[in-house]
Amino acid sequence: MDERVREHAELLVDWSARVEAGDDVVVSVAEDAHELGVAVAEALGERGANVTTLYGSDEIGRAYLKGVESAADGDVEAADFDDDPAVDRALFEAADAYLRIGGGRNTTASADVNRETRQAYATARKGVREARMDTDWVSTVHPTRSLAQQAGMAYEEYQEFVYDAVLRDWEALADEMANMKDVLDAGEEVRIVTERDDAPDTDITMSIAGRTAVNSAASVAYDSHNLPSGEVFTAPYDTTGEAFFDVPMTIDATRVRNVHLTFEDGEVVDFSAETGEDALAGILDTDAGARRLGELGIGMNRGIDRFTDSILFDEKMGDTVHMAVGRAYDACLPEGESGNDSAVHVDMISDVSEDSFMAVDGEVVQRNGTFRWEDGFKA
Amino acid sequence: MDERVREHAELLVDWSARVEAGDDVVVSVAEDAHELGVAVAEALGERGANVTTLYGSDEIGRAYLKGVESAADGDVEAADFDDDPAVDRALFEAADAYLRIGGGRNTTASADVNRETRQAYATARKGVREARMDTDWVSTVHPTRSLAQQAGMAYEEYQEFVYDAVLRDWEALADEMANMKDVLDAGEEVRIVTERDDAPDTDITMSIAGRTAVNSAASVAYDSHNLPSGEVFTAPYDTTGEAFFDVPMTIDATRVRNVHLTFEDGEVVDFSAETGEDALAGILDTDAGARRLGELGIGMNRGIDRFTDSILFDEKMGDTVHMAVGRAYDACLPEGESGNDSAVHVDMISDVSEDSFMAVDGEVVQRNGTFRWEDGFKA
Repeated sequence: MDERVREHAELLVDWSARVEAGDDVVVSVAEDAHELGVAVAEALGERGANVTTLYGSDEIGRAYLKGVESAADGDVEAADFDDDPAVDRALFEAADAYLRIGGGRNTTASADVNRETRQAYATARKGVREARMDTDWVSTVHPTRSLAQQAGMAYEEYQEFVYDAVLRDWEALADEMANMKDVLDAGEEVRIVTERDDAPDTDITMSIAGRTAVNSAASVAYDSHNLPSGEVFTAPYDTTGEAFFDVPMTIDATRVRNVHLTFEDGEVVDFSAETGEDALAGILDTDAGARRLGELGIGMNRGIDRFTDSILFDEKMGDTVHMAVGRAYDACLPEGESGNDSAVHVDMISDVSEDSFMAVDGEVVQRNGTFRWEDGFKA
Repeated sequence: MDERVREHAELLVDWSARVEAGDDVVVSVAEDAHELGVAVAEALGERGANVTTLYGSDEIGRAYLKGVESAADGDVEAADFDDDPAVDRALFEAADAYLRIGGGRNTTASADVNRETRQAYATARKGVREARMDTDWVSTVHPTRSLAQQAGMAYEEYQEFVYDAVLRDWEALADEMANMKDVLDAGEEVRIVTERDDAPDTDITMSIAGRTAVNSAASVAYDSHNLPSGEVFTAPYDTTGEAFFDVPMTIDATRVRNVHLTFEDGEVVDFSAETGEDALAGILDTDAGARRLGELGIGMNRGIDRFTDSILFDEKMGDTVHMAVGRAYDACLPEGESGNDSAVHVDMISDVSEDSFMAVDGEVVQRNGTFRWEDGFKA
């Protein structure tokens, strides 16, 4: 076995999920993630944890939904799904940690499932999702040929890319990201502006007063649930203005490019996309919370040096910011307060490496990708 | 998709597990059983069931146990495992049905795990196993290259073999097997004798008074949990005599041939095997119940025409009988009575096509493979 696979597994189990003896750990293994699944199981056995392994197969998920569509003559509603599937609820309620290892065989495996079906399924499974997110969950991927293809890269090239992003000195990065967290925790209002010749302008303002930023250092000890991570994020509200997202992405197996959103009183009141506008509309129509921001994130992982059409990596890249419509993370909210609620959470990314700035309470904290505490920063 | 895969899936869901709308179904998919897993998921979606998919990977199971061995410096005891793993218990307690789809990549995937480790794991997981067996569980396999190799067959040849055994008229076979069940239900004592020139004799007697035979027609509606099935079995006790099992088998990844068992007062008091005697000894030493019979079964599926070193098929073959040491099935026992109890259940098979007879209460019911109700039977 490639030694990097073992390092990845140990990082996931020890640094990210902080697994201890006696923990009940659920691991989900995608179709081509078998090798990392094996390394993770061995590490969990060494730590004295219990392990239950799910098969995270997109093709099986697609087949199930096609079966439901067939029974409903194509017209599926949330009521066609059990809104409290007993096994999945019991499973996640009993789990201490949930390790999701992505890496399928086809990133468009569910392309022929109706969007309404997917939405109905997501809506019905809100309780399961909440139980899952109450665990120490961590999401990662094993580098597969399918993900390499999605990224437009050769397989070995993509493996290098993944391990450069994942196998980092996370404590050092956490220390650096603490600067950004301090600024956001102390701040009340964020403004982000980009003025590039080749793209619509962004000028968007949002409140962050009372919210707590997460120093997302790829560990549940930092309220961080992705490996790799390397971002600082918070839960904004009262968003106003316009934002343009130039980084291409895939929503529900549909390619979406150049999204433009207009916010008034915290809600999306107008939207467009150069391609994939229907997929974007589907997301925004999921529920009321899907039209409000749930997250503002600042990418700070400079081990990620290119976009690969995977949100797990793209949103963490240095010199980017992202905003997600939909669900806010509890970790950003005051104890007992509920933030934006939705069945969805969809991130959209802007390159801020040029002709841009981000200001907190009127003070510039990042300009053209360079942070205030870095060499070459110009206020 | 091969139409036979769809037929197999529908038989499993409808005939075998009797899945209905709203049922919570756990499906376990082995490494190379993906295609049947997909077909089963689609059928479950059509029926309106909920589905949770486990990854039944032998390699992941082996890696976990190797991790535990490593932490215990190779000396694993049952106490090294949590005896009540919360997730697995909750999962099976919440499930209505459990569909296990075998078909890995290597039937010897766990060959380097210590026998003591496997036994300790099996002992610790007794509660989980009981919860699983309280569901409407069904075990089947998808034909894989690894199973073809185990059988000494070409891949396409093996596919034909599997579908000949599985895609049968189960109602017609159930009617035929009812004859055998009637004989065993009315009987008090079974005697099985083989006298072949090329093998040690079998002459074994066991009590079946008060026990109920199962007409194992590959459906939970018949208390039958294998697809394919095609056997009638009961739970004997007070076994005396000697039995020789000439059909080769694999126990814990070890090839075992020509087992000879001597019973006194219901217990194995002497045993030998031409090859794999250590593996046999390991099974018999698991616990007290592992030295007593849990099952006597009569193979009646004539769609199975050869031994393939897979107990799922071999024990169902026409012209064979099998006896299992270990756990008895509740379905054979009077309500509230507990039968032989053990962490193991290991079947051993004898060819009875020649120079043999089986008598119930002194009356011959099968001679040289031919049953009393068949043409050519000689009492």
